[in-house]
Amino acid sequence: MPKALILVADGSEEIEFVTPYDVLTRAGFDVVSVGVGLKENYAHMSRNIRIVPDYPTLLSLPHQTAHAYYDILILPGGAPGAKTFSTTNAVLELVDNFRKEGKWVAAICAGTTALVASQKKLGGEKARVTSHPSVREQVEKEGGWEYSEERVVVDEAKKVVTSRGPGTALGFALGIVELLGGKEGRVEVGNAMVLAETL
Amino acid sequence: MPKALILVADGSEEIEFVTPYDVLTRAGFDVVSVGVGLKENYAHMSRNIRIVPDYPTLLSLPHQTAHAYYDILILPGGAPGAKTFSTTNAVLELVDNFRKEGKWVAAICAGTTALVASQKKLGGEKARVTSHPSVREQVEKEGGWEYSEERVVVDEAKKVVTSRGPGTALGFALGIVELLGGKEGRVEVGNAMVLAETL
Repeated sequence: MPKALILVADGSEEIEFVTPYDVLTRAGFDVVSVGVGLKENYAHMSRNIRIVPDYPTLLSLPHQTAHAYYDILILPGGAPGAKTFSTTNAVLELVDNFRKEGKWVAAICAGTTALVASQKKLGGEKARVTSHPSVREQVEKEGGWEYSEERVVVDEAKKVVTSRGPGTALGFALGIVELLGGKEGRVEVGNAMVLAETL
Repeated sequence: MPKALILVADGSEEIEFVTPYDVLTRAGFDVVSVGVGLKENYAHMSRNIRIVPDYPTLLSLPHQTAHAYYDILILPGGAPGAKTFSTTNAVLELVDNFRKEGKWVAAICAGTTALVASQKKLGGEKARVTSHPSVREQVEKEGGWEYSEERVVVDEAKKVVTSRGPGTALGFALGIVELLGGKEGRVEVGNAMVLAETL
């Protein structure tokens, strides 16, 4: 089954972290979370929930060439967490490595700014993306990113999936299930969760 | 602002725990989580996320007459977590105390079974409710509960709010915001989250 790596920092948005982790696990993915710059052994999330990641730091990951092992890297939003990602060289390099290896990178809400920061520093192709409306300007001012207001944006050629906010987290997660695990997996997982008509 | 108490056990469903906690915090509620029967200092949730509650046990809560202090008690689903709630006398009494005090009780997914278990053991009025479809029979076999298939069911007279699964968690949480914090709060919080048309 596909393997997903999800980053988490202090100030990451809990719904945007938990929803892909939960939904991908339901779909049979091998999901691993890793802390970035945590002050404690848990992430103090944006609305005060405390989450203990599977690995406390990037250096503690058993697969040091993560881009070779995992199929997708997922960046949750939450402004403070996304800022940590965007200003941590190891994260910018991780994003770049996934992209160079032809693996997927997924970002939701302010998480898109970390994708943009990686491209700005280390290069790579700009893609069709979305983000939380509050950071749209920050994305567009870099130029070259094709901005969409769709709830979930998949750029198949660039292998980038992006989404907008906590209210889009289920659609984002199920979009990833469909991309890497197929349409049937999406339907099966979705039915058990009692989905709304729109996501 | 309203005060909410959310229970969490090993095997609780992470989306159903995190979504009300996050959304109510966004709406300015004072939200506190408390562990029930945890094996570690964190809850090992249903899809392997580890969450550290604000208080590790009911006995460690600063307000021992919780039903007097909090305005609403929230029971997330996840079959193993809901079973722990349903078989822990302190939880059944907590539910009963909230109901006798005229406070709200909210349950999502399998969480509804803990509400039913409390009523069965300690009495109180049966209400109009929903649950995850997989535990509908368990609810209906007790008789007297008016079962609905709506995504979020509010029984204003009995002060019971129930919902169906992780896919209904946002509607459940925003329904609680509206009930205790007003329609405007719901709209304001919802807009920032980039909601779908249906919840």
